[in-house]
Amino acid sequence: MSSSELKNDRFLRALLKQPVDTTPVWIMRQAGRYLPEYRETRARAGSFMDLCENPDLACEVTLQPLERYDLDAAILFSDILTIPDAMGLGLYFSEGEGPKFKTPVRDIGAIRNLPTPDPEQELRYVMDAVRVIRRELNGRVPLIGFSGSPWTLATYMVEGGTTKDFGKIKGMMYDAPAALQLLLEKLADSVSSYLNAQIAAGAQAVMVFDTWGGVLSPEKYQEFSLAYMQRIVSGLTRHSEGRQVPVTLFTKGGGQWLELMAETGCDALGLDWTQDIADARQRVGNKVALQGNMDPCVLYASPEIIREEVKKVLHGYGKGTGHVFNLGHGIHQHINPDNVSVLVDAVHDYSSKA
Amino acid sequence: MSSSELKNDRFLRALLKQPVDTTPVWIMRQAGRYLPEYRETRARAGSFMDLCENPDLACEVTLQPLERYDLDAAILFSDILTIPDAMGLGLYFSEGEGPKFKTPVRDIGAIRNLPTPDPEQELRYVMDAVRVIRRELNGRVPLIGFSGSPWTLATYMVEGGTTKDFGKIKGMMYDAPAALQLLLEKLADSVSSYLNAQIAAGAQAVMVFDTWGGVLSPEKYQEFSLAYMQRIVSGLTRHSEGRQVPVTLFTKGGGQWLELMAETGCDALGLDWTQDIADARQRVGNKVALQGNMDPCVLYASPEIIREEVKKVLHGYGKGTGHVFNLGHGIHQHINPDNVSVLVDAVHDYSSKA
Repeated sequence: MSSSELKNDRFLRALLKQPVDTTPVWIMRQAGRYLPEYRETRARAGSFMDLCENPDLACEVTLQPLERYDLDAAILFSDILTIPDAMGLGLYFSEGEGPKFKTPVRDIGAIRNLPTPDPEQELRYVMDAVRVIRRELNGRVPLIGFSGSPWTLATYMVEGGTTKDFGKIKGMMYDAPAALQLLLEKLADSVSSYLNAQIAAGAQAVMVFDTWGGVLSPEKYQEFSLAYMQRIVSGLTRHSEGRQVPVTLFTKGGGQWLELMAETGCDALGLDWTQDIADARQRVGNKVALQGNMDPCVLYASPEIIREEVKKVLHGYGKGTGHVFNLGHGIHQHINPDNVSVLVDAVHDYSSKA
Repeated sequence: MSSSELKNDRFLRALLKQPVDTTPVWIMRQAGRYLPEYRETRARAGSFMDLCENPDLACEVTLQPLERYDLDAAILFSDILTIPDAMGLGLYFSEGEGPKFKTPVRDIGAIRNLPTPDPEQELRYVMDAVRVIRRELNGRVPLIGFSGSPWTLATYMVEGGTTKDFGKIKGMMYDAPAALQLLLEKLADSVSSYLNAQIAAGAQAVMVFDTWGGVLSPEKYQEFSLAYMQRIVSGLTRHSEGRQVPVTLFTKGGGQWLELMAETGCDALGLDWTQDIADARQRVGNKVALQGNMDPCVLYASPEIIREEVKKVLHGYGKGTGHVFNLGHGIHQHINPDNVSVLVDAVHDYSSKA
């Protein structure tokens, strides 16, 4: 079916600042460990990467939250580190320590040797998942594709995994900036072709997650993270299936740089909960839509408090379109799934009456 | 000796925006694991808390960085969690996992039962350390006393240790705000009397570390962190030994709230490296001095780059007094100690010529 047959397009409309009947909502990491049915599928799949690499199972978990909640978008189930894995770094997950790479890249020689993955070859399993999910969604809601930002991917590739102090990649940034720039260029090209392939396979919106841009100084953020997201935005397919494909940039901890991010030509910005959404809207004006930004920890509270906090965010954004409700970061593992219903219903309920 | 006999008071003068000959510099966590002599003393002491609780050894490590570097201040060697430990929570350190408490506080009953520690009783070892260090410093440079902020202490007390998602304390914040407020009030009172006792024992400046204020939304930051730091600032002894005792507030990740922080009546604000110091100075005007803010990761770079980055921070702050050079966060464990000399000398060298 063509996307013009989308039964619910308010997510795409809000990202493009077109009128909507009620504020659309989805939840970062909505397909995840807080859901018992996810844990069941995950156990059947084997490892986390086995789950990502199996298009049918990836589709199964992508659709699970849509069965429970009245969500306005689905997001491809995958990992942000598929590109470095496809470059040959050997992604694996060690219990309790997060993602790791067998062969981190630490010098210009290793960076020069990195191949640019072909999305329909080494990353074919992702494109297959997009195709299967689109077929199974059958026009119910739009499908979001995504990637990590070049800077964020580079942090894992250079550090070899998660890090608290970013010593290795920042050492490279200060002492060997040309090496890091080459790595970021290669990543920007790979992310562009990866997202374009997701769009060709059926993704109806795309999002770039810059999880670690917020650990940079303002000067270095512009030079080593934003510049490469800008390249990606410029290189993206912006129309597909007769519709515009909105692109959203999200730098966690990057609230002070919203104006600069809005200048990249993206359609929307993700906002974490450390920002006031009313201030943020004032700062970006009519340039972009905003997605966010309730503290994920509100979901530990009682239904009454959840409804109040939802109201505050909706009220903070104010009248008019251009708002996609979301948390300010991914949902936590130990949240009671019933509380997500409270949130989703409250968003639709209050915003349709406002 | 009286503090009027201080041989080097440029640190105190800069915090009070009085003229200085060259920009003063000290380094957060300057007495720490990156120094081989620290590791040697630490091994002799036994556990980390054994080291904190032994005034002679605490003095020894406090003075170690002053032997190596031309620093303009010493900072009491201690832990930020001494107050909750003195309240009976049972602080301990598990290898690689940071501080933990045997009996976290999770409800209003436990909070009501918390005693307010007497600084000269349960925390006498800290005051003894201050007295020994002052004697051994012999007027060379001023001594900084410090405490964690109420919010930051509360995160450890409620979570039971370090946390990535702050689910328990934020759950309390949303669902049982009165319980959390009582805890924060008790902590504000305890921190005030703790810092006043440090001043009485000889601390010549004090600093409040709000390590985790930056994980809050703007609304919650004001209500649950800043309000209690405000109480502390209002309750502090501001003169001792014939001199003003400057107070510095530092919220990591709190760069967007500098104007609000400056209104507390403190003398200076600590700045992390995600802020541009020129912007920060413009925003706070003449209200407070600024301390910071080089990315600690610059110390992984070569001496040439370190000097360049020092120059950028000094140039960013610009002409006139009111700047104390520091890193934007504590020095990392794996830094080459020689690079700290490069930094310290560069600060004095460039700023005396500017």
